[in-house]
Amino acid sequence: MTTMPNPDDLPMDWVGNWIGPWARRYPGRQAVYDAASGAHLSYAELNDKANRMAEWLTDELGMQPGEVVCLLCRNRLEALYLYLACGKLGLIMAPLSYRLRPRELNDLLSRMAPAALLYEAAFDDLAGELELPDSLRQRYRLSEEGQELAGRLAAQSGGEQNRSLPMSATYLYIHTGGTTATPKVCVVPYRQMIWNSFDLMVAGGGTRDARELITFPFFHIGGWNSLTPILHGGGYAVLMRQFDPGELLRLIDQERIRHFGGVEAMFRFIQQHPDYEKATLQSLEGITSAGAPCAQPVMDAFLDRGIAVTQAYGLTEAGPSNFINAAWDEDLEQMRGQTASIGTAMPHCDYRLVDQETGEPVTAGETGVLCMRSLHHFGGYLGDTARTAKAIDDAGWVWSGDLAVEDEDGMIRIVGRADNMFVSGGENVSPEEIETVLAGHASVTQAGVVAVADDRWGQVAVAAVVAPDAESDVLLDDLRRRCSQELAAFKRPREIRVVEGLPLTGAGKLDRSALAALFASPDSH
Amino acid sequence: MTTMPNPDDLPMDWVGNWIGPWARRYPGRQAVYDAASGAHLSYAELNDKANRMAEWLTDELGMQPGEVVCLLCRNRLEALYLYLACGKLGLIMAPLSYRLRPRELNDLLSRMAPAALLYEAAFDDLAGELELPDSLRQRYRLSEEGQELAGRLAAQSGGEQNRSLPMSATYLYIHTGGTTATPKVCVVPYRQMIWNSFDLMVAGGGTRDARELITFPFFHIGGWNSLTPILHGGGYAVLMRQFDPGELLRLIDQERIRHFGGVEAMFRFIQQHPDYEKATLQSLEGITSAGAPCAQPVMDAFLDRGIAVTQAYGLTEAGPSNFINAAWDEDLEQMRGQTASIGTAMPHCDYRLVDQETGEPVTAGETGVLCMRSLHHFGGYLGDTARTAKAIDDAGWVWSGDLAVEDEDGMIRIVGRADNMFVSGGENVSPEEIETVLAGHASVTQAGVVAVADDRWGQVAVAAVVAPDAESDVLLDDLRRRCSQELAAFKRPREIRVVEGLPLTGAGKLDRSALAALFASPDSH
Repeated sequence: MTTMPNPDDLPMDWVGNWIGPWARRYPGRQAVYDAASGAHLSYAELNDKANRMAEWLTDELGMQPGEVVCLLCRNRLEALYLYLACGKLGLIMAPLSYRLRPRELNDLLSRMAPAALLYEAAFDDLAGELELPDSLRQRYRLSEEGQELAGRLAAQSGGEQNRSLPMSATYLYIHTGGTTATPKVCVVPYRQMIWNSFDLMVAGGGTRDARELITFPFFHIGGWNSLTPILHGGGYAVLMRQFDPGELLRLIDQERIRHFGGVEAMFRFIQQHPDYEKATLQSLEGITSAGAPCAQPVMDAFLDRGIAVTQAYGLTEAGPSNFINAAWDEDLEQMRGQTASIGTAMPHCDYRLVDQETGEPVTAGETGVLCMRSLHHFGGYLGDTARTAKAIDDAGWVWSGDLAVEDEDGMIRIVGRADNMFVSGGENVSPEEIETVLAGHASVTQAGVVAVADDRWGQVAVAAVVAPDAESDVLLDDLRRRCSQELAAFKRPREIRVVEGLPLTGAGKLDRSALAALFASPDSH
Repeated sequence: MTTMPNPDDLPMDWVGNWIGPWARRYPGRQAVYDAASGAHLSYAELNDKANRMAEWLTDELGMQPGEVVCLLCRNRLEALYLYLACGKLGLIMAPLSYRLRPRELNDLLSRMAPAALLYEAAFDDLAGELELPDSLRQRYRLSEEGQELAGRLAAQSGGEQNRSLPMSATYLYIHTGGTTATPKVCVVPYRQMIWNSFDLMVAGGGTRDARELITFPFFHIGGWNSLTPILHGGGYAVLMRQFDPGELLRLIDQERIRHFGGVEAMFRFIQQHPDYEKATLQSLEGITSAGAPCAQPVMDAFLDRGIAVTQAYGLTEAGPSNFINAAWDEDLEQMRGQTASIGTAMPHCDYRLVDQETGEPVTAGETGVLCMRSLHHFGGYLGDTARTAKAIDDAGWVWSGDLAVEDEDGMIRIVGRADNMFVSGGENVSPEEIETVLAGHASVTQAGVVAVADDRWGQVAVAAVVAPDAESDVLLDDLRRRCSQELAAFKRPREIRVVEGLPLTGAGKLDRSALAALFASPDSH
């Protein structure tokens, strides 16, 4: 036998060319509708735009394969063109969260070392406060209506642009909540997005007839993860600039949407919206809840209207889709009461629950750290070998940090975190990052942050600080200002208290349970 | 970044465990119906049988990972159990064609070096004539009703059997028509079957709702290729012992079959069957023609009944599915007249047409050799480095040997062969193999074989021999007997003529065009 090349390193024309095959095969098929602009694009039209975007990036911005383009933008067609163009050219796309503050974004920019930054006019102020890294050669402002870029794209030749790429090449940089002061940047290879798309398509029965409403922002992997399998499989996707419950309800009926995903907070906003009762939702077959377990009453409200609700679970590092509690064989009534379960692994994802110390599988029914192994694992943290080695081992197991239990019927329930991270409105939040910001104040000698339950966001941060020499009212004003400046809104503590001392464990570490109990007790107010 | 393991070599639990995820996720869902035995199996039941088969292979037959099991058997459940059990254990399954003669099978057995042979009672005579290789430790006879094996499987524990396997591990040995005296044996890794399944699922929109009738024999890759994406995706498949047009018509209506594949000769038998007109075929949405272009009148007869007909193309070495002329955007009328087109490449398959001598891409509209590159290429020919190197190059391109033209609309038409192989009733036939058998007769000094058109099989072999000292009638009887003994029926010449001399090219080689013309001319009879 000849020496076969490593398939992961074999350049292929189709890698990154998500819609090229469909543009050729069924050019007239509808691919995407952008609700904000009212634009409808067929697969041929979308592919043409992606080709022109690729030409513009190459010829006008001088972008070379492997270079990084940062994007600060809501969910709009130009972001999709860029995603598709990067896939055709082998550029790395790095979407940035517009929820972050300049301090957070500057840190990301310096580590991502982009050659270009595209930002939307809506974020003029934020973009103006950024410290641009030396690597940056191009900075492009996308106007609200996007006419200038449209003109530039129209001026391109429109010829097919596509480089052969190996599956191992890097496609995206996706930042995610960090466990220390700095967010992590996940390196996402094509292999990850391709295999994740396969897993979702096989689990869901294909996406050719899909009519999906994209609700997640494109700066999370969830945005691209909702969209990619749809376009990869030849289905139909609808974009909203950003999540808006009234607009969502209108679009479901207008576009005969069959499925969308979201987090619990979004579902609450939808159900509380004045149009919720009058929307027919006739076309809607299923909703997928992600990010964190969804409360039973919220799931039940959809089930009561005959809409299936499935609970999904995944990590940017391991999936992004790894588990789904889908019950195709069951009727809707059987979905009730399953809110705590993330179900079974995706068809092409292995998992095991291991002892946190020994790494050995736990015995049935015991709590262990959930580890996952698949071909849609990430390519490591950008520039952080030590953290990468902790996240994925040599056998390909990604350690989630989530504590889980396997039920007798093989269903998995998440029961906690091995670290202190929590989820607020679908966003990962690290107490340590907030503590670092609070402790940066000259008067603060100690800071402790924990999560408490919140009706709107599921969980929110609360903080206690020790500041022996400070005037409480002035200090609290200072700290709130400081948090507003340095932390995205979803990380900011709902309440900050000045205390005499923080509760400590026997080992002298912050006792987070005791601190949480303090906030839970009304007497302590 | 840590050194990530090569994904192709990373053992995964799910690799080869096609139905394990579905047995867990929707155990009660119907997986397969075996028409001959009347058995219906759910995913949980099929997985249980596969587990028991795996236990039996391990504990009673002593099979070890990487060892080879040969199978001489029609399409029956036990063959499917074996296929699934080999996938769970990492055994290599080598199905043998019962159309072959002992000489042909003995050659395959000696090269495949099986540790076990399972054969069906229907082939007692054929099995009795085989020369079993020294590697063989186990020989098991499967009775018509299979009670003995059923008892052995019932005696196993039924626990889950599954080894982690890398995608690069070998799954199947598939023999295919050779260009010389010996058939080729394609090494098929898991990667090939997995990627081909993805390609078919993405191209076809998923298989969860599939209701597929399996018409191809399991000794061709086409049999497993029809079945694997159905089980991989959670759909429903129906088995026939072997192709039977009356049974097929009955099963389509009874089982509400939505799709089946076949070759032109099968379609003719179906359309000529007395039950064809009275079968409603109401559930039937599409038919896929494979193996060779299907004649327009045969396709039209289905189109006239509102059934889509798509033309597929592929090689065991490169696919098995590489192209499909599917016209989802078009109505049935637009499918007419496309008989000569194999359409466009599968979504994850690259292709190009190259000059046979230089290997450079031909200019648009010119004839070139069709080359394909994908992650579902084969793992080389068993024990034949030289042939493997000719079939697949270092960049991953598989050279098909088929000459093709790309139309203006990007559709590919096959226009001939770069070598002399032809297709008879869906089977690849090599003139050289037949010539070798004929020239083995002591009186024959030269033999030439070409294909001629045949109403029933598409093409069949005809032969001319030079035998200066032989009595014609005696010689022809001898040669016919010799062909019956040594060649499968589909390879045997329809006509053998004794001639004075064979037509030669200027270079002194057999002039196959001139020889074919000789047979085409009625005057020469």
